[in-house]
Amino acid sequence: MDNKPKIVIIGAGFGGIAMAKSFKNKNVDVLLIDQHNYHNFQPLMYQVATGGLEPGSIAYPVRRIFRKYKNVNFRMAEVFSVSSQEQTLSTTAGIISYDYLIIATGSQNNFFNFEPVKDKLLTLKSIPDALNLRSFIFQNLEKAMEDTNNQPLDEILNIAIVGGGPAGIELAGALAEMKRFVIPKDFPGLDISKMNINLYEAAPKLLAVMSENASAKSELYLKQLGINVFLNAKVSDYDGVKITLADQTTFQTDTVIWTAGVKGAPINGLPKEVIVGGNRISVNEYNQVIGFKNVFAIGDVAAHLSLLNPKGLPMLAPVAQQQGKLLSKNILRQIASKPLEVFKYKDKGTMATVGRKKAVVDLPKWKFQGTFAWLVWMFIHIFSLIGFRNKFVAFLDWFSNYISYDRPLGLIIRPYKRLDKNNTDG
Amino acid sequence: MDNKPKIVIIGAGFGGIAMAKSFKNKNVDVLLIDQHNYHNFQPLMYQVATGGLEPGSIAYPVRRIFRKYKNVNFRMAEVFSVSSQEQTLSTTAGIISYDYLIIATGSQNNFFNFEPVKDKLLTLKSIPDALNLRSFIFQNLEKAMEDTNNQPLDEILNIAIVGGGPAGIELAGALAEMKRFVIPKDFPGLDISKMNINLYEAAPKLLAVMSENASAKSELYLKQLGINVFLNAKVSDYDGVKITLADQTTFQTDTVIWTAGVKGAPINGLPKEVIVGGNRISVNEYNQVIGFKNVFAIGDVAAHLSLLNPKGLPMLAPVAQQQGKLLSKNILRQIASKPLEVFKYKDKGTMATVGRKKAVVDLPKWKFQGTFAWLVWMFIHIFSLIGFRNKFVAFLDWFSNYISYDRPLGLIIRPYKRLDKNNTDG
Repeated sequence: MDNKPKIVIIGAGFGGIAMAKSFKNKNVDVLLIDQHNYHNFQPLMYQVATGGLEPGSIAYPVRRIFRKYKNVNFRMAEVFSVSSQEQTLSTTAGIISYDYLIIATGSQNNFFNFEPVKDKLLTLKSIPDALNLRSFIFQNLEKAMEDTNNQPLDEILNIAIVGGGPAGIELAGALAEMKRFVIPKDFPGLDISKMNINLYEAAPKLLAVMSENASAKSELYLKQLGINVFLNAKVSDYDGVKITLADQTTFQTDTVIWTAGVKGAPINGLPKEVIVGGNRISVNEYNQVIGFKNVFAIGDVAAHLSLLNPKGLPMLAPVAQQQGKLLSKNILRQIASKPLEVFKYKDKGTMATVGRKKAVVDLPKWKFQGTFAWLVWMFIHIFSLIGFRNKFVAFLDWFSNYISYDRPLGLIIRPYKRLDKNNTDG
Repeated sequence: MDNKPKIVIIGAGFGGIAMAKSFKNKNVDVLLIDQHNYHNFQPLMYQVATGGLEPGSIAYPVRRIFRKYKNVNFRMAEVFSVSSQEQTLSTTAGIISYDYLIIATGSQNNFFNFEPVKDKLLTLKSIPDALNLRSFIFQNLEKAMEDTNNQPLDEILNIAIVGGGPAGIELAGALAEMKRFVIPKDFPGLDISKMNINLYEAAPKLLAVMSENASAKSELYLKQLGINVFLNAKVSDYDGVKITLADQTTFQTDTVIWTAGVKGAPINGLPKEVIVGGNRISVNEYNQVIGFKNVFAIGDVAAHLSLLNPKGLPMLAPVAQQQGKLLSKNILRQIASKPLEVFKYKDKGTMATVGRKKAVVDLPKWKFQGTFAWLVWMFIHIFSLIGFRNKFVAFLDWFSNYISYDRPLGLIIRPYKRLDKNNTDG
């Protein structure tokens, strides 16, 4: 119809959403593409996995976010590849052309040396992952109640978490509270002492990106909750029923949850030389992909390698959001042939929660832990959910969990079957 | 340990739950078995399918219901068969013995002449069914937005519902409201006039079990909402893209939702002669399976054939609940060698809702329709949900739908793939 520049954003994560929002009512046509029809709030995925929140509370249909944005459209599609020469994307919804392309495809699990056994692991990168994990844990608890089951009880009940970052420690804390407050009520007669939860971290401390205080306090909190924390603990193998560490110690469990790392999830069709460490896309200080004028990358998938940040910025939601907001302005400047503004990350702090009244917060000028940190964590996370309904239901669920020491949601809606051939039951 | 009589109830539906509750603190050991770990509130399944309620609002973990029942245990298991001679069940959780057995296994879809094409149909008997339906409809809407899609738009958007009972008309009404109030907001540019919703009923009226007024009014309501209602309309074939009626008229659609009938879901191992019409188990006036003293059936799966009810009682939740409550007393009488009490169904009425301010209620002495009926319907359904959390969240979601003319939940969490080979996309 008209000749407005066509801006295509791949990925409706924190970066893609922030960027598309910043184009509201600007003289450009924006097309946002995602393989799912919803945006999800990744930091609370572990709450879905442990029955604290409903999937609907942390996910929100993308189309609803942009209902009042006349110049923003959405397409649910998977992107096969980009042809930067033709300025087109090949997708499950056909060929899509662009004037400006923004790759905001985020990250995927990095299994490192566990790549060959990844089908035996449970993960926490998506809502189906979280629901699978919830089903798997509750199925195992049901299995543990059977008299005729021929699997050793500790193999069924034990849980290993690999990775001591925020995802790993938040999940460990939530599982520990489930073990203590929920499972004994729902599974009377079950020998809960057979359930050991081990957390393995390869580095010498938990929460590597946070302060020493936060690392030490989160370790203390986990131990108080009964988690066995292993530092400098490199995992070396997993056969489906037993995880082996580099020092050859083993732990019998059919439940290994992998939170040990992520890598970029770039699209196909980019020149090989722009893919750098961590499978991320090399960008300049304006988030332009190196060698391109009209192709950009933001968020987890982008890495601006500099002397200050030789590995690029951390893979965090605020980085993606800040990059998205600035990039939309820069693209408008580029369209108007004005000079671009250099991206500078404003670190607003990081936080993680282990359990009730147990959280750690690192602000740039103030680091604190404990009950107040936990309240701050809850307030910020509820406030960050999209939509009043989701904020309210999350508040309600957490408030009721707080009062009752309970978790409301333990449905095995789709029995989870692992891909490995050992597991043939439903 | 002790010699309390062991009562085994198969099925945690309305009948099984009511019965197990009635045994609270009695001098018997109760084991409740279900293939799922939750009880679900079947009458609101269509709300999950159309994005009005979360699955977690209408389903509740069985173990939580019985937390404070010391003499009631739960086992998640599938029952393969019963051996009434040995007084045992063979199940996925091993052999389970009983002194008294209650079969409360409910009903399953009856596809009648559509049995050969059942894999091409969508159904609404379980929570996975409802989530599949929700995914399927939203996937189709996304597909309709693609320029390159090679399926005709009316085939994608049209919906056929077979069956004009409560499930069919409630679903049709909810879909009509989605079409009118939600889809145009989320899918601007989509030619919604291509979406026709046809409801086929083989009988000469809708809601066969309800009053003439209720039937006529529900038909009027559906037509007001834009549903094409076809009475005396027997469906004869479906090929995946086109449904054919007995009169050879056809309707192009890839979405056929089957709500046309149910039949009993008895367990294996019973003598053939006790399985009567509608695949139900023949019971006497005490809900004893004919020919047995200690095997009983209640609810949808049971049929007490009498001159008054030659086809047995209707397959409704209140029947199952009343039977369950009386049977627990009767079993205690039987244990105490006292005479049993004959079951008498107290009909408290039936109701169905078509849409906002459009419902029909038949009480034994008062039949009414419209806004007040709708309020009564909502009040009773919210009140019937298990747990304060579920009541509150359902109330919140419905209240917000009422204010906003919206439905909050449209996530395609697991892309639904139909079993038929035509459908290979995600």
